[in-house]
Amino acid sequence: MLDLKQLGQKAGAAARSLATVPREQKDTALYAIADALLSEQEDILTANRADVAEAQENGLSEALIDRLTLTPERLANIAADTRKVAELPDPVGEEFDARTLENGLRVCKRRTPLGVLGVIYESRPNVTIDIAALALKSGNAVILRGGKETLRSNKALIKAVQRGLEEADLPGDSVQYIDDPDRRYVLELLRLHEYVDMIIPRGGAGLHQFCRENATVPVITGGVGVCHLFVDASADLDRALDVLQNAKVQRPSVCNALDTALIHRAIAADFLPRLADRLAQDGVRFKADEEALAILEAASNGRWQVEPAGPGDWDTEWLSLVLGIKVVGGLEEAIEHIQAHSTGHSDGILTQDQMHADRFVDRVDSAAVYVNASTRFTDGAQFGLGAEVAISTQKLHARGPMALRELTTYKWIIIGDGHVRA
Amino acid sequence: MLDLKQLGQKAGAAARSLATVPREQKDTALYAIADALLSEQEDILTANRADVAEAQENGLSEALIDRLTLTPERLANIAADTRKVAELPDPVGEEFDARTLENGLRVCKRRTPLGVLGVIYESRPNVTIDIAALALKSGNAVILRGGKETLRSNKALIKAVQRGLEEADLPGDSVQYIDDPDRRYVLELLRLHEYVDMIIPRGGAGLHQFCRENATVPVITGGVGVCHLFVDASADLDRALDVLQNAKVQRPSVCNALDTALIHRAIAADFLPRLADRLAQDGVRFKADEEALAILEAASNGRWQVEPAGPGDWDTEWLSLVLGIKVVGGLEEAIEHIQAHSTGHSDGILTQDQMHADRFVDRVDSAAVYVNASTRFTDGAQFGLGAEVAISTQKLHARGPMALRELTTYKWIIIGDGHVRA
Repeated sequence: MLDLKQLGQKAGAAARSLATVPREQKDTALYAIADALLSEQEDILTANRADVAEAQENGLSEALIDRLTLTPERLANIAADTRKVAELPDPVGEEFDARTLENGLRVCKRRTPLGVLGVIYESRPNVTIDIAALALKSGNAVILRGGKETLRSNKALIKAVQRGLEEADLPGDSVQYIDDPDRRYVLELLRLHEYVDMIIPRGGAGLHQFCRENATVPVITGGVGVCHLFVDASADLDRALDVLQNAKVQRPSVCNALDTALIHRAIAADFLPRLADRLAQDGVRFKADEEALAILEAASNGRWQVEPAGPGDWDTEWLSLVLGIKVVGGLEEAIEHIQAHSTGHSDGILTQDQMHADRFVDRVDSAAVYVNASTRFTDGAQFGLGAEVAISTQKLHARGPMALRELTTYKWIIIGDGHVRA
Repeated sequence: MLDLKQLGQKAGAAARSLATVPREQKDTALYAIADALLSEQEDILTANRADVAEAQENGLSEALIDRLTLTPERLANIAADTRKVAELPDPVGEEFDARTLENGLRVCKRRTPLGVLGVIYESRPNVTIDIAALALKSGNAVILRGGKETLRSNKALIKAVQRGLEEADLPGDSVQYIDDPDRRYVLELLRLHEYVDMIIPRGGAGLHQFCRENATVPVITGGVGVCHLFVDASADLDRALDVLQNAKVQRPSVCNALDTALIHRAIAADFLPRLADRLAQDGVRFKADEEALAILEAASNGRWQVEPAGPGDWDTEWLSLVLGIKVVGGLEEAIEHIQAHSTGHSDGILTQDQMHADRFVDRVDSAAVYVNASTRFTDGAQFGLGAEVAISTQKLHARGPMALRELTTYKWIIIGDGHVRA
């Protein structure tokens, strides 16, 4: 039986060490972890084969099995990503908002690690290394809890992490893994507020909801994206086709993929058949409101599949080659639909009208608001952050892609000369 | 019976309007609220007298009754504070972290209101106006829940707020008050994550714990400060006396007041009697560890009251004229004591040794870390923020004093020209 309180205490002690470790030592650990992933490749792949075999016996889907499978090439990529994290700037120690008050007190904020992160994720073993690397680089200790399907793989990966920590003379408790698949430990982790500073769930809507409902530790919720693009009457329609296709089909299983296209009535009769024709070539099926349905059915000739959208469909994250389509009277109706149905992840407008673009950006309150671009860009690497821990759709602390800086907090430092308050 | 979901929906609609209201309109509302507080003074004071009378019947303590009492002078101060909020800069709309990516996408962050705040507070009626003003200024809607002892006063104050909102043509639902004292509504508010973006508890440790345990909405916890000052061997001892006195007695009932003084062994025999002598004049009593106790008892001559510190005393926020005193062997022992017992609010070192100051600031992980100054400065107004909503002792979102900027989040804005992800 695991004592999570003890895990928490050990993580806290490690975090206190990590908080002031120089960048070089953290980077040494990251390079050593990358090396260990390769030198221990046989152990890791053997463990992973056992996980994959069990998953096959248990009848997991091909897609899930693919997600948990490691290959020499995938492992090499994970090692390369770890080296890339070492090359990123260290966010810790930066001082900002400095000023001298009228009474002579010097005040500034200094960026510091959050302390201890708790990360709960599903079956991808690459997340184990990814998160361990980002936590280390930002000076945080981390307690990991991966899916039970990858337990053997994760234990082998953690061994490599431990070797890297040892080589850099960093505390082994910096990265701990909950290796008992009993779900009670997830619950315990969520309530470990005495030791854990932030919980990051990496998974579907169910996991996020479970964390929000049960955590006493602050949780970063996100990951669920019902994403919209509004094609305005003035849009460049050729480019709009490219953007909609990219947003829908480039990787339909992820949270920033397009779910609902809102089409301005003035262009619907002309544009909708072109859109359907283009996306049907990639296998997309359509759920249309009454008005779009009439246009699409009349023009189909069997070239695409369309059916009436049900009431819950506007709130559905498809994660597949399905697209909701709705005709709207104009900008205001599009904004209202988005305000009612967006999960606040990524929403955009395609328009040549600057006033419409401005109004859309002002009124749509999502983590990422786009003008004339695909929603697929909502990603830490794409936004130039060099990494991504999670995508937040809540408003506290960080919104949208979170990287190293979002794994830090700050402390106020106040320097006086015997100052007392009047 | 109140329908909190409906309150939430109305707050959400108001928040969508407030998010893009120009600064002038918000300031007009704030000035109008200040005016209404004065023009409706009679109604407000009458309501408050009824609250005070009931509190006296119920045998509330003098201190509590003082906190809930309004006078013409106090009301004038509240009105003046509201005008001051109008004069503060508007945090909303600022754009930052702008860059153009290699692919030509233009990315920036824009500061936006959080949306809907839920604020749960105890008996001070001034908080009602204070929070309403700061929420409005930062473009947020707010749902308020004050203590039942001030229900009549708060309802009268809210009437003045409503008048101000109306005069500025802002939605009345921008500021709503839960006027049913049933505690179930606190619980419902804490779980209204569909509509509320942040909960701010303003009260003691019990309230903060209740919120953390029960909320599904993100909570800003804080307000509890077990604060330390370490007097190093090299400290300027005359100034140290001033600072310790200020930190302990200037306002002992608040969270940034001093709770434990850690004294370097090298100066203890000399400094402790001077400290006790000075603070005893203000009525301070002492809880001392064995070593300090021996020194203080030997030198007392009845001039001060000292007793042995019990094991729980190092984790006690005194909120009164009691001071814990402990002798430590040096900087490291002081840091270890603080790491073990601080609530992460405000801790400081008094020293002339720059290396010791630096090490203390590096190692002590509190919201505010002081060198040669009183802990009493941890306050939004003192830090030059112009206001204060709360003091956070957690690490997400904001740490230490929170003002207008800490009531905002940001959205990413991405401007392209038909960009698609490769």
